[in-house]
Amino acid sequence: MLTDVPEHPFSGLPVCSDLTRIDAAALILGVPIATLYPQVGAFAATSPAAIRAAMAGGQLGHHDFEIDGSLLEDMFEKVVDGGDLVPSTTDFAANRAEITTAIKQVLSARSVPIVLGGDDSVPIPVLQAYEGRGPLTILQLDAHIDWRDEVGGERQGLSSNMRRASEMDWIDRIIQVGMRHVGSARRKEYEDALDWGVSIVTARQIFREGIESVLELIPQNSQVYIAFDCDSLDCSIMPAVMGPTPGGLTYWDVVELIHETANKANLVGFNLVEFAPDRDTTGHAAHLAGRITLNAAAAAARKRD
Amino acid sequence: MLTDVPEHPFSGLPVCSDLTRIDAAALILGVPIATLYPQVGAFAATSPAAIRAAMAGGQLGHHDFEIDGSLLEDMFEKVVDGGDLVPSTTDFAANRAEITTAIKQVLSARSVPIVLGGDDSVPIPVLQAYEGRGPLTILQLDAHIDWRDEVGGERQGLSSNMRRASEMDWIDRIIQVGMRHVGSARRKEYEDALDWGVSIVTARQIFREGIESVLELIPQNSQVYIAFDCDSLDCSIMPAVMGPTPGGLTYWDVVELIHETANKANLVGFNLVEFAPDRDTTGHAAHLAGRITLNAAAAAARKRD
Amino acid sequence: MLTDVPEHPFSGLPVCSDLTRIDAAALILGVPIATLYPQVGAFAATSPAAIRAAMAGGQLGHHDFEIDGSLLEDMFEKVVDGGDLVPSTTDFAANRAEITTAIKQVLSARSVPIVLGGDDSVPIPVLQAYEGRGPLTILQLDAHIDWRDEVGGERQGLSSNMRRASEMDWIDRIIQVGMRHVGSARRKEYEDALDWGVSIVTARQIFREGIESVLELIPQNSQVYIAFDCDSLDCSIMPAVMGPTPGGLTYWDVVELIHETANKANLVGFNLVEFAPDRDTTGHAAHLAGRITLNAAAAAARKRD
Amino acid sequence: MLTDVPEHPFSGLPVCSDLTRIDAAALILGVPIATLYPQVGAFAATSPAAIRAAMAGGQLGHHDFEIDGSLLEDMFEKVVDGGDLVPSTTDFAANRAEITTAIKQVLSARSVPIVLGGDDSVPIPVLQAYEGRGPLTILQLDAHIDWRDEVGGERQGLSSNMRRASEMDWIDRIIQVGMRHVGSARRKEYEDALDWGVSIVTARQIFREGIESVLELIPQNSQVYIAFDCDSLDCSIMPAVMGPTPGGLTYWDVVELIHETANKANLVGFNLVEFAPDRDTTGHAAHLAGRITLNAAAAAARKRD
Amino acid sequence: MLTDVPEHPFSGLPVCSDLTRIDAAALILGVPIATLYPQVGAFAATSPAAIRAAMAGGQLGHHDFEIDGSLLEDMFEKVVDGGDLVPSTTDFAANRAEITTAIKQVLSARSVPIVLGGDDSVPIPVLQAYEGRGPLTILQLDAHIDWRDEVGGERQGLSSNMRRASEMDWIDRIIQVGMRHVGSARRKEYEDALDWGVSIVTARQIFREGIESVLELIPQNSQVYIAFDCDSLDCSIMPAVMGPTPGGLTYWDVVELIHETANKANLVGFNLVEFAPDRDTTGHAAHLAGRITLNAAAAAARKRD
Amino acid sequence: MLTDVPEHPFSGLPVCSDLTRIDAAALILGVPIATLYPQVGAFAATSPAAIRAAMAGGQLGHHDFEIDGSLLEDMFEKVVDGGDLVPSTTDFAANRAEITTAIKQVLSARSVPIVLGGDDSVPIPVLQAYEGRGPLTILQLDAHIDWRDEVGGERQGLSSNMRRASEMDWIDRIIQVGMRHVGSARRKEYEDALDWGVSIVTARQIFREGIESVLELIPQNSQVYIAFDCDSLDCSIMPAVMGPTPGGLTYWDVVELIHETANKANLVGFNLVEFAPDRDTTGHAAHLAGRITLNAAAAAARKRD
Repeated sequence: MLTDVPEHPFSGLPVCSDLTRIDAAALILGVPIATLYPQVGAFAATSPAAIRAAMAGGQLGHHDFEIDGSLLEDMFEKVVDGGDLVPSTTDFAANRAEITTAIKQVLSARSVPIVLGGDDSVPIPVLQAYEGRGPLTILQLDAHIDWRDEVGGERQGLSSNMRRASEMDWIDRIIQVGMRHVGSARRKEYEDALDWGVSIVTARQIFREGIESVLELIPQNSQVYIAFDCDSLDCSIMPAVMGPTPGGLTYWDVVELIHETANKANLVGFNLVEFAPDRDTTGHAAHLAGRITLNAAAAAARKRD
Repeated sequence: MLTDVPEHPFSGLPVCSDLTRIDAAALILGVPIATLYPQVGAFAATSPAAIRAAMAGGQLGHHDFEIDGSLLEDMFEKVVDGGDLVPSTTDFAANRAEITTAIKQVLSARSVPIVLGGDDSVPIPVLQAYEGRGPLTILQLDAHIDWRDEVGGERQGLSSNMRRASEMDWIDRIIQVGMRHVGSARRKEYEDALDWGVSIVTARQIFREGIESVLELIPQNSQVYIAFDCDSLDCSIMPAVMGPTPGGLTYWDVVELIHETANKANLVGFNLVEFAPDRDTTGHAAHLAGRITLNAAAAAARKRD
Repeated sequence: MLTDVPEHPFSGLPVCSDLTRIDAAALILGVPIATLYPQVGAFAATSPAAIRAAMAGGQLGHHDFEIDGSLLEDMFEKVVDGGDLVPSTTDFAANRAEITTAIKQVLSARSVPIVLGGDDSVPIPVLQAYEGRGPLTILQLDAHIDWRDEVGGERQGLSSNMRRASEMDWIDRIIQVGMRHVGSARRKEYEDALDWGVSIVTARQIFREGIESVLELIPQNSQVYIAFDCDSLDCSIMPAVMGPTPGGLTYWDVVELIHETANKANLVGFNLVEFAPDRDTTGHAAHLAGRITLNAAAAAARKRD
Repeated sequence: MLTDVPEHPFSGLPVCSDLTRIDAAALILGVPIATLYPQVGAFAATSPAAIRAAMAGGQLGHHDFEIDGSLLEDMFEKVVDGGDLVPSTTDFAANRAEITTAIKQVLSARSVPIVLGGDDSVPIPVLQAYEGRGPLTILQLDAHIDWRDEVGGERQGLSSNMRRASEMDWIDRIIQVGMRHVGSARRKEYEDALDWGVSIVTARQIFREGIESVLELIPQNSQVYIAFDCDSLDCSIMPAVMGPTPGGLTYWDVVELIHETANKANLVGFNLVEFAPDRDTTGHAAHLAGRITLNAAAAAARKRD
Repeated sequence: MLTDVPEHPFSGLPVCSDLTRIDAAALILGVPIATLYPQVGAFAATSPAAIRAAMAGGQLGHHDFEIDGSLLEDMFEKVVDGGDLVPSTTDFAANRAEITTAIKQVLSARSVPIVLGGDDSVPIPVLQAYEGRGPLTILQLDAHIDWRDEVGGERQGLSSNMRRASEMDWIDRIIQVGMRHVGSARRKEYEDALDWGVSIVTARQIFREGIESVLELIPQNSQVYIAFDCDSLDCSIMPAVMGPTPGGLTYWDVVELIHETANKANLVGFNLVEFAPDRDTTGHAAHLAGRITLNAAAAAARKRD
Repeated sequence: MLTDVPEHPFSGLPVCSDLTRIDAAALILGVPIATLYPQVGAFAATSPAAIRAAMAGGQLGHHDFEIDGSLLEDMFEKVVDGGDLVPSTTDFAANRAEITTAIKQVLSARSVPIVLGGDDSVPIPVLQAYEGRGPLTILQLDAHIDWRDEVGGERQGLSSNMRRASEMDWIDRIIQVGMRHVGSARRKEYEDALDWGVSIVTARQIFREGIESVLELIPQNSQVYIAFDCDSLDCSIMPAVMGPTPGGLTYWDVVELIHETANKANLVGFNLVEFAPDRDTTGHAAHLAGRITLNAAAAAARKRD
């Protein structure tokens, strides 16, 4: 499968635009659109371009104080930018099929997909690609639990991703972190999630107990997929989402969760979704989203003994 | 047909929420959604609420220097706020049917519909309701000509309204005013419009010749429907649209065009579309949109000998 | 006493507009104005309307992750929205009398008043209504101590609320939390406060010791009134105050203080004041103020054994 | 009378802080407060300081393309900055007395007062000082006619200035320019104004006929006082007012009106009011207000044969 | 000479990155830096990239209502994007030499250079390249006259461009349009300019007399170079300059001046300078700058009989 | 040496404009410019004026809850505002010489210099003045390590301050705190810093271990100079820097580090640099910078036994 060559490769990484020829431990892949709600539109479709632009000045040879090294150094396996899938704005089934195929190609190459969404419908076809590769633990960072069965008849949309994930045989554990405020979930959805067996760590619990309470829930050496929704972050640093709310995670909460998850278990996939470039009123949010993505790529590519 | 009672009636006008019992010369009707493009979403659906809120402080008994009087005075027929239609976010055919029915009810009551959209797909079912009431002249104020035959397979969407209008027998004249910049129209669409016989007055012509060049095109005593798209306005006063651009019409250009049209011909309908409340970065745009609407209502309701 | 029926009931709560017929464990009451300083004006008078509008989408039946349930569930007593008092902009003595009367009615109905100010002069007549219901502990969250005896001759204004509270027999303890920066207090006022016996926990102490240092000061099972001034919050999340300053409390500091206070003692009243809608430059502050109010209502209405 | 020495003299002009020793053809005087409405507050009290700061970089020796010269050149009489009156925030009668006294001193020195308000209550005591110096024509540039008899019992406030002016014997003509929108005037006030004999030129008329229609109303060689309210300007360039509205005057409309008035008649006074520094969201409005003031000073001080 | 291939070719134009092989009637060339003042820095160096990004969506095949056609149609000669020169941030003499060389190559190919600056020092080496190709008329659109002989010892900087131009033998006429406000020019510089023989049309004159007064000054069939400084535009549409000021030109003033100049005379060069992307607070200014550039390219490339 | 008398003395402190006559334990000194990079310009030159303006309302006699007292009380030695040095914008060697001379005068008077930069080139000549007064520990709070040997040939610029400091004999320890993100340092510079023996505490470490990990590195009773760069702060509270980034220090991190350093060791100097007033998009950042400066002055002037 061929992708669009990015104009600004993420952080100056080498480019790989043929997903049948991947030679890298981790591959960044833009997925602008999966399944849209007609009333919401493609608010996050320009997110991959905006994040790449914000990270265009990345100087890979420099020391990075967050990953304590440089992605070009020996301590890391190779990371590449795989460009963007080219989505349809109307044929969502085709989008989902293409996303699943692309991610399967990445996984076949023993590479970790680092996905730049797109809205929160993107994880559904991404997770579909892990069929036969379970069992998987999902670590979702999000303000909402996303357990709607359907919205306006659409079952594959952004409010249903964890419901759909729960139906995949190869996923046996879902840890949902960062929930806050009213409206995240109707009574029934919340109960369905608990009945299925998800672990919920609310934003308020993070404030009280720190991220250690999350890390304890992750089984040693398990395979973990991190589903990161930008609205898990506090609105003071991440206004560029559809419903910015106070009380969210800090930058370091997220960065630490990513690295410590990768230290304790195996990070087998990551997505960043729901970044809405038009709403970046401070002008700093695209860079923030890019930094989180880079930390995820580094966590996936770091050599371990 | 029953509508949603508005929380803030437009400018404090009396409310009429049963469209089968209209007793007014003009009726303001909110139409949040007609036909959405899935990739664009319902960006203008909160527009009626936002505009009503901005106009909530309207003091009808006061002298209004733009309409040179007050809507409560004898010089005007009665104007009412008809509330909002309640749209579906997924069944667009149903929306269109409901819109056409509602407008037919307004017209049957010999009332002039003053429509608060919604995106620019709203005028299509509105104009459909004028079947049998022609011939109609359309005066469109817009940055774009909107002559796409279809976009992603959708033929009823916001880029196709004037194409669809041109196919209605009861519309015999289309005057398109305010066009500017590249991208408004593919070559073929532009030629189709000219072949059909539209008159185009670009924004640049307005600068050179003033609005008189538009007024000359309006036949004396004809029936005129004004289709007003907020992006016809200059971006310095109207940032709250999807593509704000410089060189647009001024507030007074629009107000004068409305009143002079009504003086020279019969104003039989009006719509304001494409107002996107989320993009009102100055906080003044909703009031501006409301003032234009109020001027249209006054022009329709002014008693003439 | 009859109040203005709110257009957007707070979070969709049932409305009670006759304060002589309250059947609820907690009642939200808007108090736009008490005693104005002429040079400052009524900057917070539109605060109840703005907060209700921001909370209008509240979906009471949904699970709320901060109160760990829903206000409609059995774990909570009933909460209602009592609407707004209708203030005079010039007769401040009349305002104060009306506020005290209204709060007495709420207290007589064994309901907890949850007051949406208004500026920080509102708590004075509110606290007056507790006469005969003491002893009361006041937990003030504020950047300033508000111990001015008078400002420009006015003794009932926003800078004097804790001074006035200290003069009420039924208040025997004042805990002041969140003070920071210079200018909060003249030397004499600061000393008067200490002499009276207030406990001050500065914002800097909160940073060093956490909110536990505050909770320790609250006597087990005492009656506590929480006087919350929005400027206690950090300016990165709450710009909509007259003097936004860094180093303020976080959202979770406040939410935890409210719930833990209600767990340890009896929450008998709450006010949120000094929210200035015109200064909400991020557009998120009204929702934040609303969420804090909702948490206070839930803390007051939660059933305990 | 002694005034506060300004930290940033207006445009670098020489300072005169003793109003009994004025030696200048025009004197700029800051008047932060006259009569406040308690519900509105002193929103414009920092206006003189903000405007002086924005004009601090003024380079008097340079060529100014709007006044076609430099205030230091021979073609102009001397202009000085008289500093600011020091207002009370509570004793408004004292403010008014002090303002009238100060302006009388300026007029006694045969100097033209160029007043930096303050809100629109400032012109009342200023105009009082012209007693015995009539007949005067007032040229008011404003979005509102300001003919309220009282608001909340206050008869000297910002909504009553033209009503009060109409009651002064020495004022025989009032030309009101720039009115727009609803709410400017209740029916009765509008009629009272017309009955008295004011001439109204609405903003819409300015658009149609240009400023010439105003200039024709000014009697040759009469004495004209220009009362300039910042809300007469369009909100795209002047957001820093209490009610920014579209359709206002342009910068050049105002500059031309000032100079052409001074060419045709005698400019005997000027005030700029209602500038609210806190609302200057673009950061350009204080400079704009300062430039208009400088043009007024130049028009008053220009030597004529 | 080889240039940097632009990531986003201007408006989707074909690219020409080898200036020795130009086959086009007009060539757009980015010149990020010429001669910097150390205290000011390279505020406009990212301007070419920002403008290209804003124009990236340009759909060349569409009808453009401002140029009344499409750059791909027969009515226009070919226009290409020549990419950007790669400047030194410290060796300004080298920058100037490279700029002059590049422009000479463009002129040798009988192509019209359309230069995207950079600050206002860029025109100096550009105009140097016209040596031997005179006589030239310069039409400068700017708020300032730029006649400083030196600033801090630097004679080639942004305040000296018209002074330096006046010293070039091949320039025999300078028309300076758009001047406003104080500080644009010291007395001596203003007089030197007049002594040399420049024609000045102030912004105020444009308001009074329209752009016709400028067009009359341009000799029929002369060779005209348009030096466009973004600060000539009004600050309500162009905030992205170092000193945004009211009273500036409108978009249509500029567009008309460009086309009418090209109609009456020969447009032999154009530059747009002083666009500061960091100051684009509305987010619309880069597109505006791009549209003006596109109009200049079209004016240069339009076939005439 | 004489300095410019500040228009707004910092926080209302007494002024000392003759550095040969200092009678104070700490002196605040504005240093607008040291050594500029031509491509960057003097973005921080207006920083002293902006910070003084933001602190002009400082009421010294009031209780300050952060320093737990008032600078006018007995618990503090005297603090004065020494005004600003008057820099050259082109002769950087002269600037550096003047800065070093001025700081030597302050140190000779046994006063602690509290320096308001200017960009991050300011510390180089400041630290030069400590020659013969070592050994010194530098506590740098910054997002970057600033170990470039030169940039474009300039060795004294803002990226080289810690490299230059490492070459000064009298500096024997450098603690660098707050580093984050990629690009802060090329590989070689990072290694040079470690080879020299700096201690680095990254922002991520601060999140994990708190500021105690920094305090442990400061030798008891040593002489410590705090070099504070505003970009060490989180971008949610400090947008007014050239590269705002998330994950930075909080206000309290900085305030505590200053006071605890002064408690454990001797605070012998302080600078605040890189504040860019033009980028203060929230309008709160100048006050924040001023508060940090005031805390540093208080820490230096607090009497200890």
